[in-house]
Amino acid sequence: MIVPIELINSSNITYDITIDVLPNLSFDTSVVIVTNDTIAPLHLDSLLSKIEAPQLNVVTIPDGEKYKTLATVEGILNECFEYRLDRKSLLIAFGGGVIGDMTGFSASLYQRGIDFIQIPTTLLSQVDASVGGKTGVNNAFGKNLIGAFYQPKAVYIDPSFLSTLPAREFGAGIAEIVKMAVMFDRDYFEYLQRADFANRDTLKEIIKRSVELKAWVVNQDEKEAGIRAVLNYGHTFGHVVENETRYSEYLHGEAVSIGMVMANALAVELGLLSIDEANEVKALLIKSKLPIDYIIKDVDSFYEHFFLDKKSARGSIKFILPNGIGNFKMLNDIDESVVKKVLSSFGDSK
Amino acid sequence: MIVPIELINSSNITYDITIDVLPNLSFDTSVVIVTNDTIAPLHLDSLLSKIEAPQLNVVTIPDGEKYKTLATVEGILNECFEYRLDRKSLLIAFGGGVIGDMTGFSASLYQRGIDFIQIPTTLLSQVDASVGGKTGVNNAFGKNLIGAFYQPKAVYIDPSFLSTLPAREFGAGIAEIVKMAVMFDRDYFEYLQRADFANRDTLKEIIKRSVELKAWVVNQDEKEAGIRAVLNYGHTFGHVVENETRYSEYLHGEAVSIGMVMANALAVELGLLSIDEANEVKALLIKSKLPIDYIIKDVDSFYEHFFLDKKSARGSIKFILPNGIGNFKMLNDIDESVVKKVLSSFGDSK
Repeated sequence: MIVPIELINSSNITYDITIDVLPNLSFDTSVVIVTNDTIAPLHLDSLLSKIEAPQLNVVTIPDGEKYKTLATVEGILNECFEYRLDRKSLLIAFGGGVIGDMTGFSASLYQRGIDFIQIPTTLLSQVDASVGGKTGVNNAFGKNLIGAFYQPKAVYIDPSFLSTLPAREFGAGIAEIVKMAVMFDRDYFEYLQRADFANRDTLKEIIKRSVELKAWVVNQDEKEAGIRAVLNYGHTFGHVVENETRYSEYLHGEAVSIGMVMANALAVELGLLSIDEANEVKALLIKSKLPIDYIIKDVDSFYEHFFLDKKSARGSIKFILPNGIGNFKMLNDIDESVVKKVLSSFGDSK
Repeated sequence: MIVPIELINSSNITYDITIDVLPNLSFDTSVVIVTNDTIAPLHLDSLLSKIEAPQLNVVTIPDGEKYKTLATVEGILNECFEYRLDRKSLLIAFGGGVIGDMTGFSASLYQRGIDFIQIPTTLLSQVDASVGGKTGVNNAFGKNLIGAFYQPKAVYIDPSFLSTLPAREFGAGIAEIVKMAVMFDRDYFEYLQRADFANRDTLKEIIKRSVELKAWVVNQDEKEAGIRAVLNYGHTFGHVVENETRYSEYLHGEAVSIGMVMANALAVELGLLSIDEANEVKALLIKSKLPIDYIIKDVDSFYEHFFLDKKSARGSIKFILPNGIGNFKMLNDIDESVVKKVLSSFGDSK
């Protein structure tokens, strides 16, 4: 199945996301595949057997978020210069979100921009990073603080790569899927409640719906000035959780899962969500083997962390909350005491 | 006078270039001025007296092309994070082309893009870097090889900053002005032949016409896929001259001056330009105190250097030549022996 992406409202770029077994791909330009040392031993041979190009090289970088730095991108660029890529050349991102973000960013920078294609190999990158064009790296001040908006020429999502994905990483992808459902689509949420994630066809349907929803959001707001912020549901809290645990305890999607539980608690406090609905979301997260508990040791410190997040424009915190399941509400002006009261409820084991 | 820039054909961005005494500027967001240690002692106080903002900071970097690196940009970004700029903040480039390119590039990268304004202080950056949105840095493989297309929100060109510009740098700016005239506008070329560059009003007219011509080109081809390559007239040869002399002997505009003389010699050889016309261009360059001679010691080595230039897509060299004064011709397929014959004519002192 093919999902056409049409970013007609701002950059006027269109491309296709193909959700199927990876087809044979033929290019008439130099190609560099960027991948990591986890995915390469598992799937690189299979990928190479499907790609034809006059010059084909591979850049392999170490796996992990801690390598998502400007220094790594500079290394990728240097290898591209060694291979003498020109402005018609192509990069292929082959891996998870870190590979996608850094490959897209490298493509945007190389001679001020060359084409790139994404072949995401994790569920998270298939449903999340494959749409939206956010590329970039982390630095000492936080995650994704340096980067560019840059769209791929095509995305190929082959669910068969997920066969080698660790269960925790699979769950982390489901977290972003649940996020889309809670924010935008009650029917999709109910479908997920019933779904068997191990069924290949079900998985394709789930990926397709998630990609469609994200494309719908991104097309309205490619540069993240408005509605696209809704995709940060669970992330405002989740980023603090990741930061407090020094990015070593939880996968990003797991932190988002905890973050959604916290956001829902705030939504319940504000009367936007019923306790039953909050519990429905919790149950779906538990079904997906995602964590839902986190002990906030210092509420004031947790709260202060919000202001370090780049989404906090000029000192106010934008909270993205469910307004019932399938609808969202953005709030800029929630009283500090209300937020801290909710955070306090995570202060002891529940 | 105001030149409206309308990049309606690709990015759909519009902004104004104001050519006049710098007005008072007031902003309601955090502002960081990026400047260098040459311009700061001369004009920073004057600039600061004209800017009002809730938070105003200055980042000063060392002057010179050799600091135009990714490391310097990372340093600028880190200072911006220290000052806690957010997505609404503004960078102001205050200096020559290097400052403009790095400030624009930093603005494009900071949280995936914040606004920037250019206040160019050299003639070269006023007529050249102020239009076009090419930002970036050099690396070990060459000049401007890493970067982004990113447009400013506004440009303020105040010719009074040129009062402290060294004569050689002034000439380097004239080289790019001559380039525009030779490529696009015979009348403008004749105006330059008669012009007194020391007259402030004449200078404003010259800057205005150059900016208008460049905007006309860039609007047709913002991402440099076609006609914009014409702006590389003199640059294909000039880059090799700069590279051979390790960027230490000639200013960029001076190398372009030599490069135009070489390109003209090739155009004469191909029957595109008369010897009289080539001499007219030479005379204008000499009037502007620009160098026109260069001894090519090794023709083969000089020729090979073309292929290291990023403008050489897939192994062919694109030559931009005058087709009479005021018209251009792009040629991809000039025989190697013809080019080398012309290069050989620069092989001994002439």
